Amino acid sequence: MEPSPGCRDARPAVTPVAAVLPAGGSGERLGGATPKQFCAVQGRPLVSYTVRAMERISWIADIIVVVSPENIEIMKSIIERYGHKRVTIVKGGITRHRSIFNGLKVFAENEFSNHLLQKPEVVIIHDAVRPFVEEDILSKVVMAAKEHGAAGAIRPLVSTVIASAADGCLDHSLERARYRASEMPQAFLFDIIYEAYRQCTDYDLDYGTECLHLALKYCKTNAKLVEGTADLWKVTYKRDLYAAESIIKDNLSQEVCVITDVREAVAQVGFLLHECLKSQIKGKKYAIQETQQLVDMLEKSNIPLLYPVVLILVHLDISENISFSIGMEELTRIKKFAREVKKKNILVYGLLIQYKDHLLLQETVNSAAALIMALIKDRNPELIGQLLVA
Amino acid sequence: MEPSPGCRDARPAVTPVAAVLPAGGSGERLGGATPKQFCAVQGRPLVSYTVRAMERISWIADIIVVVSPENIEIMKSIIERYGHKRVTIVKGGITRHRSIFNGLKVFAENEFSNHLLQKPEVVIIHDAVRPFVEEDILSKVVMAAKEHGAAGAIRPLVSTVIASAADGCLDHSLERARYRASEMPQAFLFDIIYEAYRQCTDYDLDYGTECLHLALKYCKTNAKLVEGTADLWKVTYKRDLYAAESIIKDNLSQEVCVITDVREAVAQVGFLLHECLKSQIKGKKYAIQETQQLVDMLEKSNIPLLYPVVLILVHLDISENISFSIGMEELTRIKKFAREVKKKNILVYGLLIQYKDHLLLQETVNSAAALIMALIKDRNPELIGQLLVA
Repeated sequence: MEPSPGCRDARPAVTPVAAVLPAGGSGERLGGATPKQFCAVQGRPLVSYTVRAMERISWIADIIVVVSPENIEIMKSIIERYGHKRVTIVKGGITRHRSIFNGLKVFAENEFSNHLLQKPEVVIIHDAVRPFVEEDILSKVVMAAKEHGAAGAIRPLVSTVIASAADGCLDHSLERARYRASEMPQAFLFDIIYEAYRQCTDYDLDYGTECLHLALKYCKTNAKLVEGTADLWKVTYKRDLYAAESIIKDNLSQEVCVITDVREAVAQVGFLLHECLKSQIKGKKYAIQETQQLVDMLEKSNIPLLYPVVLILVHLDISENISFSIGMEELTRIKKFAREVKKKNILVYGLLIQYKDHLLLQETVNSAAALIMALIKDRNPELIGQLLVA
Repeated sequence: MEPSPGCRDARPAVTPVAAVLPAGGSGERLGGATPKQFCAVQGRPLVSYTVRAMERISWIADIIVVVSPENIEIMKSIIERYGHKRVTIVKGGITRHRSIFNGLKVFAENEFSNHLLQKPEVVIIHDAVRPFVEEDILSKVVMAAKEHGAAGAIRPLVSTVIASAADGCLDHSLERARYRASEMPQAFLFDIIYEAYRQCTDYDLDYGTECLHLALKYCKTNAKLVEGTADLWKVTYKRDLYAAESIIKDNLSQEVCVITDVREAVAQVGFLLHECLKSQIKGKKYAIQETQQLVDMLEKSNIPLLYPVVLILVHLDISENISFSIGMEELTRIKKFAREVKKKNILVYGLLIQYKDHLLLQETVNSAAALIMALIKDRNPELIGQLLVA
């Protein structure tokens, strides 16, 4: 998820850059009461993912999040809870353009903050509901804006676009290949977009949606269009939240932490499990410690847990008995412990590996690996504290 | 999911209607080797969901699925496996329009089948990758086509549409409110769309994508535009498959089958569980039988299982012991049984309800209900045969 620093040739290092994230939408199309930017994905509001996508890029100096007045406190608590830095919250207007304009004003007017933020050379404008934006496209639009004054990401049209006549019938359809969908991020020389907003008519402020259009209309700046990737899509409908959740889970499944009660005698099982997981997981870590110690460590580290962390307590049963017996008290203890640490955004599961028959070892290990993968991918909070058997 | 028959006033009962589903796409945008219409969602190819959406509507007489030559055998096996009726497979052409034209020919020419299908008055054209189409919109486009000659579903644009100049810069942006996205389903008087395709130039057959455009250009028929719902969206990218999977899981979670080892003495637990689930589940069924019997019954019924069926074997433990002990043999037997019935698309899970303390009964029952809901919603094939503890 996090690109390693310093690997970009095109990073606009010497250009002061800021980002404005309009997050004032009401989310009517989602059909829910919660505006989509505040909907929880893996327990965390969508806007926090987008802020993080900006924040991890070192050359973006300031991140302005514009929210409607009733959501300012919610946004403050999100910033605190997830430890976001370099973020300024600005009160939005009644339309998208008025909100963006308010966001720009913190660099030029004293209306919204006591101290002016340092005016950037280039400002990125990006929707709070497009959480999967990558450094590459941000860098491209910033560089293009520096050269052309304005730039924006575009995508091929998925559907044909048509114009209807007054009678509700087809008037004409547009030739799909000649048009593009205008997406985000967009970037502008600050002076150009700020001037465009200052000159903007009330009609455009109230009914327009496209910043590139304002730069063209009021500052005669033809934006450079940059082909974006499919992950720039905007969370608009409920199905998009489902998709976002699945994508995040998929990405998270690349990092694993398995805790085993390992003894020398059974190191082979650990090794096989390790090998088995290795083929399915990139960049995993092995922590052979007690669960509680790890939980304490995570807590002491004071790092906000941006995602639910999965801890799997693997228990190797190498006794000769053909039946195993587990005390209710112990089961209850595990479940209680799991419920406690869940409050810290840590999901604990138990896994019992039966190691009786040498001939079945590989099969058992495969089964354990499959269970571990399933637990990690699903991060199902209802199944915490359960003891699964491989 | 299945609308009850006879509840529609507007059903075009007396009009002979057929549907053509172009399913010849290569699915490049998904980034996978499998064309999206054949991608598995809950183990079942997407095209099967769309065929089912058409098939359940009694007034659609014939369903023509147009697939590329290399996928004809796959499509045949899908129809057989999921028991689809009224479906004719037609070999597609090299472009979308050529494929649709081939689909229409089975009603008018002898080229593609030994016996001509009865020519419909109205033909629906619908993408194989839009599985969530409802009877309401199909009915609306058919009625509108009957009156106007052509009709198509439209949706508001999600992004602004722009035209680029030769230098890759913005030329102009379209006023979003004046345009619409043209979606599917569309419907046509058969004679109009067939004539349009017969007159169609090779250029249009090769580069066009919009059937409404052909009806207008070649038959001077201005299609009636019908506002569609958000669920008409097209599975285009991988994220759309994720969304489809989540929507299907959500819909499936409305039907539950719980198997309990119930004795008279513990009927109260069953009752509370029942009450607890009732508040969360609509239209559930209670089957108090042995698992195997139910599996046999499902098998004998010869109904194709369109979705993974979840069976949860609920075991009530009312013994006074504070530890419970379960034989490895029994655990292994459950897991083996679960693996066997999984081949029949049935997922078996175990749930142990500890019923020791009367004071904790409600809590235990809530926990059991939460686990059952989680198992049903997730339908995780990796967790089959596991014994969870409430």
